[in-house]
Amino acid sequence: MSNTKTLPVLEIFGPTFQGEGMVIGKKTMFVRTAGCDYSCSWCDSAFTWDGSAKDDIRKMTAEEVLERLNFLAPHNFSHVTISGGNPALLKHMGSLVELLHAQNVEVALETQGSRWQDWFLHIDDLTISPKPPSSLMKTNFEVLDSIIEQLMEAGRTAHVSLKVVVFNEEDFLYAKLIHARYPQISFFLQVGNEDTGDEKETDDLVPKLLEEYEKLVDRTMQDRDMNQVRVLPQLHTLVWGNKRGV
Amino acid sequence: MSNTKTLPVLEIFGPTFQGEGMVIGKKTMFVRTAGCDYSCSWCDSAFTWDGSAKDDIRKMTAEEVLERLNFLAPHNFSHVTISGGNPALLKHMGSLVELLHAQNVEVALETQGSRWQDWFLHIDDLTISPKPPSSLMKTNFEVLDSIIEQLMEAGRTAHVSLKVVVFNEEDFLYAKLIHARYPQISFFLQVGNEDTGDEKETDDLVPKLLEEYEKLVDRTMQDRDMNQVRVLPQLHTLVWGNKRGV
Ligand code: SF4
Ligand code: SF4
Repeated sequence: MSNTKTLPVLEIFGPTFQGEGMVIGKKTMFVRTAGCDYSCSWCDSAFTWDGSAKDDIRKMTAEEVLERLNFLAPHNFSHVTISGGNPALLKHMGSLVELLHAQNVEVALETQGSRWQDWFLHIDDLTISPKPPSSLMKTNFEVLDSIIEQLMEAGRTAHVSLKVVVFNEEDFLYAKLIHARYPQISFFLQVGNEDTGDEKETDDLVPKLLEEYEKLVDRTMQDRDMNQVRVLPQLHTLVWGNKRGV
Repeated sequence: MSNTKTLPVLEIFGPTFQGEGMVIGKKTMFVRTAGCDYSCSWCDSAFTWDGSAKDDIRKMTAEEVLERLNFLAPHNFSHVTISGGNPALLKHMGSLVELLHAQNVEVALETQGSRWQDWFLHIDDLTISPKPPSSLMKTNFEVLDSIIEQLMEAGRTAHVSLKVVVFNEEDFLYAKLIHARYPQISFFLQVGNEDTGDEKETDDLVPKLLEEYEKLVDRTMQDRDMNQVRVLPQLHTLVWGNKRGV
């Protein structure tokens, strides 16, 4: 039944825009894979790993994923974002990346940096997003060091960014530590979003998120160690966040 | 009285974050110069050229500008954004760029692309923002072609972006034309902001801007000629827009 050449896919959708990080605003398709080696306290895609959506997982070959993308948006995309879960768990992701490149499509991918894959070297916009203390996860710096080192040695610096989500001051200090440890890598701070979209009315969501964003901006502006960073909100949550939920 | 080695400066402030375009979210200082060869119908900094702030213009040497920046934010910036008006009217801007680089500070600059200056070749993040029909200005394509050509010939493509502000469908078609004319240059679409911050209460500003942004996103998503573009709002207006004005 299980085919090691397939990918466990939960969602394929788009075209839409990338709401965060190094290519914020970019027109893109999304492919979301199932499975994660973390269980962050505030994970906004826990359904990818907590079993709640396990019946929705489809085992797809790279060719099938590409077919589905082309069916959804014929000739209407040139960028695909792969997210999870942790897509870096999937050794065979490399063939999808190859297929997309063969069609002149660029590929972005986000992972927390807990596992290396050789196909990292072919990702056009690779976001490594180590998780801060509020996630209750523990960063394995040996692995993270080795990932960043391999990317730099391969001359991929322009294709890589670090992103840390910040919910509180402790997270901010963690972000500083990450930025100081890898100063050559573009660094993005992102406002944490505690709203998981599953309860009450969210009329207050946008003002609340903008307020949190302003606080993070202010904190960063005061900090001389953070002169090179970029601070961003999640644009898709500002636009659509209050339309999800009930 | 007039000293050709000085720059007509209207504002120097920061550190704050860049709210738009190719380095959105980046910690930066702002230097705003006086004077513009355009008079866009919706110009949000008309005070730089309409005479209303002419008593606030200070003639400053590049050294004086740098001193002021260092006084405002000692050791607390490594990026400066020069805006106007049209800073490309100022031949002597080159010396400020040099001074900033000597202090390891990167320089961003925005201009509508109506004039060439040799120091364009040294700007780290150069945004060329041709004005769409709703501005009531007319693009001189001979000049614009020659600017883009010179930048490309000098290998500056990675340091340049095009940005078009869109208020309506006619503007969108103009944006498409610009993007098609210079496909090698990173292209940003930005939502127009008609609120000039000088009238009534602006409680509705954020929902209105987000709605306009969503419309521009939707329009772009449907358009196969716009697969490579990035669509962005003005983040500073979302955060602070409703705090300005009476
Ligand atoms: S690493 Fe990402 S997908 Fe995995 S638990 Fe954390 S937030 Fe969720
Ligand atoms: S080019 Fe810029 S500064 Fe000049 S009038 Fe137009 S919007 Fe205003």
